[in-house]
Amino acid sequence: MRYITSMAQIIDGKAIAAEIRAELRKDVEAFKATGHREPHLTAILVGNDQASETYVRMKMNAAQDVGISSETRRLPATTSEHELLDIIDTLNKDESVDGILVQLPVPDHMNERKVCNAIVCEKDVDGFNVFNVGRMCLDMKSMIPATPLGVIELLKRAGIDTFGKNAVVVGRSKNVSMPIAMLMHADGRNETGAMDATVTICHRFTPPKELAKYCSMADIIITATGVPGLITKEMVKPGACVIDVGITRITDPNTGKTKLVGDVDFEEVRQVAGYITPVPGGVGPMTVAMLMHNTFTAAKNLAKINKS
Amino acid sequence: MRYITSMAQIIDGKAIAAEIRAELRKDVEAFKATGHREPHLTAILVGNDQASETYVRMKMNAAQDVGISSETRRLPATTSEHELLDIIDTLNKDESVDGILVQLPVPDHMNERKVCNAIVCEKDVDGFNVFNVGRMCLDMKSMIPATPLGVIELLKRAGIDTFGKNAVVVGRSKNVSMPIAMLMHADGRNETGAMDATVTICHRFTPPKELAKYCSMADIIITATGVPGLITKEMVKPGACVIDVGITRITDPNTGKTKLVGDVDFEEVRQVAGYITPVPGGVGPMTVAMLMHNTFTAAKNLAKINKS
Repeated sequence: MRYITSMAQIIDGKAIAAEIRAELRKDVEAFKATGHREPHLTAILVGNDQASETYVRMKMNAAQDVGISSETRRLPATTSEHELLDIIDTLNKDESVDGILVQLPVPDHMNERKVCNAIVCEKDVDGFNVFNVGRMCLDMKSMIPATPLGVIELLKRAGIDTFGKNAVVVGRSKNVSMPIAMLMHADGRNETGAMDATVTICHRFTPPKELAKYCSMADIIITATGVPGLITKEMVKPGACVIDVGITRITDPNTGKTKLVGDVDFEEVRQVAGYITPVPGGVGPMTVAMLMHNTFTAAKNLAKINKS
Repeated sequence: MRYITSMAQIIDGKAIAAEIRAELRKDVEAFKATGHREPHLTAILVGNDQASETYVRMKMNAAQDVGISSETRRLPATTSEHELLDIIDTLNKDESVDGILVQLPVPDHMNERKVCNAIVCEKDVDGFNVFNVGRMCLDMKSMIPATPLGVIELLKRAGIDTFGKNAVVVGRSKNVSMPIAMLMHADGRNETGAMDATVTICHRFTPPKELAKYCSMADIIITATGVPGLITKEMVKPGACVIDVGITRITDPNTGKTKLVGDVDFEEVRQVAGYITPVPGGVGPMTVAMLMHNTFTAAKNLAKINKS
């Protein structure tokens, strides 16, 4: 074995997610002990996408784990948008349902935006409703999408200082990168409790040389592009914190087997970074844990609304 | 007079705003010629703030100039929030009103957010309704606040290239800086027609040294802080474009007279920048012009809705 002067601390997303789930389990137990019914999450899965099947199954398992009851509504790929909206409307009005999510992507004949907006804000545990997006961007309490919320929670629990630090967000997707950029730069005194970092948003049209320059100035790099190997050792400041949100399935040319990789050249970057998340086992488990967090939040809020 | 090797081109916001107003005047004329009534803007002014009085008067003059009829509703500072919301509700339903704005700030006993959200999205010419904010942040067609829209229009009409360029936005206010950062970095192929720049958001907690570093890498600096003299010559890359959104009234210690200044040390920075906006006469007139643009857009949209 080579002598290695310094290696990044690996931020164990699986362990942090397990900790959050254990806390939730306790809190849900206490909630039920005061006479409330079990929180309930309904997932809607349209069509037979394999990846979507897997994601939904992981969410349902996590729900069971923390004491949230759940149901998956499976709809054929031929379901019309109108039928889906009707089902959402029924769930919106159903007092036994706290959280609703439609697993994306929906089939091409549906307007994804219309579907996301159809879920009432209070039950919108994915935080994709335009009204929740607006509230988040105005630093107001809202449902924050689970992956961005997971990234922020990961930074907090790993003790990464962000106040006045330089951060780079690579990617500009509306469900992941944009909320991360918003929560990273905004004012910590407001309702979202944001992170007060200086934030640079890089994306597909950022020239590679400029991306490297911004990354090399960053105390925190958060990448969410789905481009394997995008973030290399040369781009990372010694000691920086690197959060890898990317997940891509690739085939190993030697073994022919497939595996999941992130945007970061993990083996190289860990030699210079101070902190790094692995893929898998980094942000992924956090997403599922924060979705449970959101569902429990929805249940608590609805219990208050129904009582008053 | 000293010999000067190069001086920034001054982006004449007053001239560009006049051009936009001339175009609007023509378009409004054509709109009326096809049988539509005059577009109508109602401004609500609560209390006796001098600056607010001036701003509203400028808006009303601009409206008259382009052929938009307008009215200012003056309410005493003692008006209750409930009364104000009632008035807004009446205006929302009034088919002779296309645009509604409440001049901010409202008195302390009112919830500004509640007031902004009370204006229906279609008539929300300031773009402060949370639903319009959400749509803008998702790159969807919406009412975009007049100052950010004015900054973007200024860059477009001055022919400043932003695609893949480095931009810095200094400030993180929700009505000005945040929308600018959103429109500067987002995807030009979407409905907002955004600018595809790499964007760094700096703010009060960005250390001065880091602010200087980010600014010196920028092809475009947009500052909106209200801190006079914040952006100095040393921070600006030769040839960069500097857009000054700041407006602060200061007293000249020599003459005792007051004058308006921006965030940029204009006399110094113009010696290195390629393009620069003056204060006054830069972004200010654009705000008023874009408010008229938004009012006319509202009138056209409502005419379509009422027809169908």
